[in-house]
Amino acid sequence: MIILKNDTFIERNEAVIDMEDRGFQFGDGVYEVIRIYNGSFFLLEDHLTRLQYSLNEAQIDVDLKEHQMKEKLIELAEKNSVEDGGLYIQISRGVAPRNHLFPAEATATIFAYPLPLKKPIDQQKNGVKAILEQDIRWLRCDIKSLNLMGNILAKQKAKDSGAYEAILCRDEDHVTEGSSTNIFIVKDGKLITHPKNNLILHGITRKYIQFLAEKLGIEFVERVYSVKEVLEADEVFLTSTTSEVTPIVEIDNKKVNDGQPGPITQKLLEQYDQYLHVDRLG
Amino acid sequence: MIILKNDTFIERNEAVIDMEDRGFQFGDGVYEVIRIYNGSFFLLEDHLTRLQYSLNEAQIDVDLKEHQMKEKLIELAEKNSVEDGGLYIQISRGVAPRNHLFPAEATATIFAYPLPLKKPIDQQKNGVKAILEQDIRWLRCDIKSLNLMGNILAKQKAKDSGAYEAILCRDEDHVTEGSSTNIFIVKDGKLITHPKNNLILHGITRKYIQFLAEKLGIEFVERVYSVKEVLEADEVFLTSTTSEVTPIVEIDNKKVNDGQPGPITQKLLEQYDQYLHVDRLG
Repeated sequence: MIILKNDTFIERNEAVIDMEDRGFQFGDGVYEVIRIYNGSFFLLEDHLTRLQYSLNEAQIDVDLKEHQMKEKLIELAEKNSVEDGGLYIQISRGVAPRNHLFPAEATATIFAYPLPLKKPIDQQKNGVKAILEQDIRWLRCDIKSLNLMGNILAKQKAKDSGAYEAILCRDEDHVTEGSSTNIFIVKDGKLITHPKNNLILHGITRKYIQFLAEKLGIEFVERVYSVKEVLEADEVFLTSTTSEVTPIVEIDNKKVNDGQPGPITQKLLEQYDQYLHVDRLG
Repeated sequence: MIILKNDTFIERNEAVIDMEDRGFQFGDGVYEVIRIYNGSFFLLEDHLTRLQYSLNEAQIDVDLKEHQMKEKLIELAEKNSVEDGGLYIQISRGVAPRNHLFPAEATATIFAYPLPLKKPIDQQKNGVKAILEQDIRWLRCDIKSLNLMGNILAKQKAKDSGAYEAILCRDEDHVTEGSSTNIFIVKDGKLITHPKNNLILHGITRKYIQFLAEKLGIEFVERVYSVKEVLEADEVFLTSTTSEVTPIVEIDNKKVNDGQPGPITQKLLEQYDQYLHVDRLG
């Protein structure tokens, strides 16, 4: 495997960092996971725009355009002959003697490498189980940061409960998103999902669903919704770059509706592959 | 400098980790900073007890006693001839292909090395400035985890405002702690600090202050207090392993009382060095 480290392509066994990299000591960095279908990137521009947003909000001084990051990632995918899969890219604030304060002189550490992603066909066909879990994460989930311990603990708890995902809620009246996905409910033919604010990641796939919903004439509503609304929804599904659209058919051991993937979820899934060549949405 | 990596002592330039260490990709690890005075550790047992707590809560499968961690840290300090300074120790969940779920087979990555810590004499004598800032961190601040971006951003904002520390509050009625310190207020001769729960780090120095307060006959009250109470306090100070006791004399450009370190703060400072040989409190 070939790895991009900063501006250089290296071999996998050379892909090491110093112990004082702030990514390692403070989780002081941001990342993206980008999907590649049929040898071409899906929504690469949207991912790079979000990465630049995360960098800016975290005050990590990196200009992706200056680094020609788009060209570098395309080159990386080519060098690894990625036909169907993805890339992971992470940028941390760099190496410096341990101190909470931003270092005056550090240079950001950039890593990118291929991820073996595949369409989750079984999960998409049959749906998955989820649990409800308290959202204990920080209040800047719009920054796609390396501070993922809250996400990890929730995801692991889901797995330990025999489920695929944890649906997070601040309280009974406020569902936010999944541990690594955005959550949608369908009620009376409308799509409902959490508003784009500081409490959720502004998912690229979420944005793509909004785009598909417009094409299909499905109403798309952004508002806070409750645990009760999730449990009484006609359909529930999750979205992410790796899970695409995946139906949730059981929550805390209770069936969602009849326990089968619903018609709107299936319609979105059917349409999902229509625009995989698109580089940027709107 | 000699570094402890896992069970081995290595040179500084060998202290690297793999890019897929979960500490680097998820902030998936925990840490401690331990003080050494006059060649001996201060409250080492308390730090190791808290480190084991953080490991357990984060479900990182490491038994510090099995690793003979206490003996290893003492050996590390000796190898580096640390007379007055400290050690940093960090344990992450280990190296595994990127996945939120805990890896089945990973071995935790342990790093420890000396930090050049010094008594902050000027700050202790003159006091420091602080700002008030919203506490945006996750709801498990009792785990001393590597997920420190919220802390970093608050500390940096303090510095950019000409201050030393950010005093964090969930809302106007609820002050929690500093970005890397515990906060105490003094009112009518009583010490008041946030209860030990999930919203603050259970500071070892905080515990030491409780111990000193008992020795000195100063009442020690653990309760939630408000921003107004901080601004109207007789004295305010912060505590941490590296800052020990440091008076806060100005908050958001307003003087605390007469803008000088107060008598109870000074008494705690005077007594601070009395028990530096102690390995474990109570």
